[in-house]
Amino acid sequence: MKPNKNYKELKESYLFSEIAKRVAKFSEENPEKQIIRMGIGDVTLPLCDAVVTAMKQASEDMGRAETFHGYGPEQGYDFLREKIKDYYAENGISLDFNEIFISDGAKSDVGNILDLFDKDNTVLIPDPVYPVYVDTNLMDGRKIVFLNANEANGFLPMPDYGVSADIIYLCSPNNPTGAVYDREQLKEWVDYAIKNEAVILFDAAYESFIDDKSLPRSIFEIKGAEKCAIEFCSLSKTAGFTGTRCGYTVVPSELEFDGFSLNKMWLRRQTTKFNGVSYVVQKGAEAVFTKEGRKQIKENIAYYRKNAEIITSTLDELNIWYTGGKNSPYVWMRCPDNMNSWEFFDKLLTEIGVVGTPGAGFGENGKEFFRLTAFSTNEKTAEAMDRLRTLF
Amino acid sequence: MKPNKNYKELKESYLFSEIAKRVAKFSEENPEKQIIRMGIGDVTLPLCDAVVTAMKQASEDMGRAETFHGYGPEQGYDFLREKIKDYYAENGISLDFNEIFISDGAKSDVGNILDLFDKDNTVLIPDPVYPVYVDTNLMDGRKIVFLNANEANGFLPMPDYGVSADIIYLCSPNNPTGAVYDREQLKEWVDYAIKNEAVILFDAAYESFIDDKSLPRSIFEIKGAEKCAIEFCSLSKTAGFTGTRCGYTVVPSELEFDGFSLNKMWLRRQTTKFNGVSYVVQKGAEAVFTKEGRKQIKENIAYYRKNAEIITSTLDELNIWYTGGKNSPYVWMRCPDNMNSWEFFDKLLTEIGVVGTPGAGFGENGKEFFRLTAFSTNEKTAEAMDRLRTLF
Repeated sequence: MKPNKNYKELKESYLFSEIAKRVAKFSEENPEKQIIRMGIGDVTLPLCDAVVTAMKQASEDMGRAETFHGYGPEQGYDFLREKIKDYYAENGISLDFNEIFISDGAKSDVGNILDLFDKDNTVLIPDPVYPVYVDTNLMDGRKIVFLNANEANGFLPMPDYGVSADIIYLCSPNNPTGAVYDREQLKEWVDYAIKNEAVILFDAAYESFIDDKSLPRSIFEIKGAEKCAIEFCSLSKTAGFTGTRCGYTVVPSELEFDGFSLNKMWLRRQTTKFNGVSYVVQKGAEAVFTKEGRKQIKENIAYYRKNAEIITSTLDELNIWYTGGKNSPYVWMRCPDNMNSWEFFDKLLTEIGVVGTPGAGFGENGKEFFRLTAFSTNEKTAEAMDRLRTLF
Repeated sequence: MKPNKNYKELKESYLFSEIAKRVAKFSEENPEKQIIRMGIGDVTLPLCDAVVTAMKQASEDMGRAETFHGYGPEQGYDFLREKIKDYYAENGISLDFNEIFISDGAKSDVGNILDLFDKDNTVLIPDPVYPVYVDTNLMDGRKIVFLNANEANGFLPMPDYGVSADIIYLCSPNNPTGAVYDREQLKEWVDYAIKNEAVILFDAAYESFIDDKSLPRSIFEIKGAEKCAIEFCSLSKTAGFTGTRCGYTVVPSELEFDGFSLNKMWLRRQTTKFNGVSYVVQKGAEAVFTKEGRKQIKENIAYYRKNAEIITSTLDELNIWYTGGKNSPYVWMRCPDNMNSWEFFDKLLTEIGVVGTPGAGFGENGKEFFRLTAFSTNEKTAEAMDRLRTLF
């Protein structure tokens, strides 16, 4: 058997293990220091009551013959797809039922969607980037072209008609930079994709953090996107589902390339290589979209937003350049005093006991930047910022 | 963007929609007739109490900050992998912890494992077959060679050293035929795979139905399998998890091809394109392996086994040739009176109101055979067999 040799092209990611190693060493040498972790991209607030109640009820359903559920539809239960259809309708987006696919999280679908594309396609990926976009394409042996996101363009790079691409990754609000495209900018991307006969893979995992009504929460708010884009969304950050696992992917029926309907291909892919999300989890996800659930998750998001506000107001005060934090749980700051991101990491860790993520872990263009997240507690976030003030 | 043109090679499967259409037509024309469904491969008994209790508790855990679980390990929680390690140990199989990967079901992993293999490999697939093996390889454009399973070999085809293959699918107890390989037969397959430097993809989804202690429940009971085989297992049939979604895959650390460790490749694949199974579901799965859980699922399996016994004793009585039903929930019978499988389907439906699955849906070699499943109730299964006796 010949293995897939493209796996040789994958670089080991030492980012989080290196962080863990340095933190462990510091803790061991300084057991008295209280460390505040602001590097994680995981939520900390528990699931809201509406979701817990729904999952307990669903578990009981599964224990009685009359209400037991065996194999469900691979693309998800109607009760949940109905709720998501309504959610999009609130933003003026009218989806067909069969355009919505329930997933076990955006990461799976963002990776698996590549099954639909030929290996001979050029992929355009912004740098810095969520490493999954890069690695999943390296595994298939596709050619990758990087797109410069930097301080000059506010980490919101725009299309370059001199570069031709077939598959384009956009993530807005962005991980790791927190930057958010506005409608005009996304329209330019849609125009570029249509002109290049390219597909946009739009990662909207952080859409629920958008507060500013003038900013788009979905690429389908942009005219023409239904002809060039697939959108991935997740309840991980919206409702704290990082460990509960549920998301959804929208593949428009109008999306056609060389006579192939991507919607029909994805349906075929999922019915062949996937067997749907747990009934119990889908009932929990349904509860997120009820009146009570919406109210409860809004409170959680407001809590995290307060952290972001604590961070950004401190950076404003210290005159440190950053993106994000306004409509995003991530703050992407320039490392002060011309430090590189690992130097800044060490300084924060050893001098004030605060852990963040060095930008170098997200690509070349991240080497002088640093990511802080809004997923800690209000108290710890405030304490971390007080400590930061003592440094600069 | 160039789509993956291999999708053109996929045939639409009309099997289950055609069955549904014919059943609906008959029901409409004969509203008074009570139809008994024995075609489904889905379980009907609810989840056992131990699992329901564990999932309710886990849902509550998720609702409290102190016991909340965010992102879990992509390869599964230790608490569940520990239980699976012990389960294998009962059959004398010693697994390393890192050889066990928790999945959202065997179907996902059986499909996704192909990411690890080059497109330029020859695939050996028995006919009749679970269609997923065929379709997932067609999607990648691999060459498929079919292996004749038939009445002469008891639907347990053995290796042909004149045929060279790189990837070999074996499913035992088999879907759809219910046939089970013995140790000597599996040893021949392992020897053939090692000689051909091939990998065996062993689907053990129905292992819990094996009663006969002389039959292997895992390919790793066979010496040498750790050098050539990957095993897929599922709680779908073992514990009624078809709608709950949890399984596991064993990739031995010794499995190496051209210097590539398949275990390390699969870990990399899963950490990149998967984010683990829901904490709540994994807690439910853990309960399956507790003393109480084991006792409860044993009762469920005994209930389904009784159905299989009702079916096979009737076929014995009627002198109809079949495989399966002894250590398997499936019974694969020769259609009587030289009928083909669709003719027999129509006869059973229209004359006695019993629905099964025509063997033609599983491949060329199934055209004169018919699948009955043991997943109905004891009462309905007995009634269906009483009706069958009136025909022959």
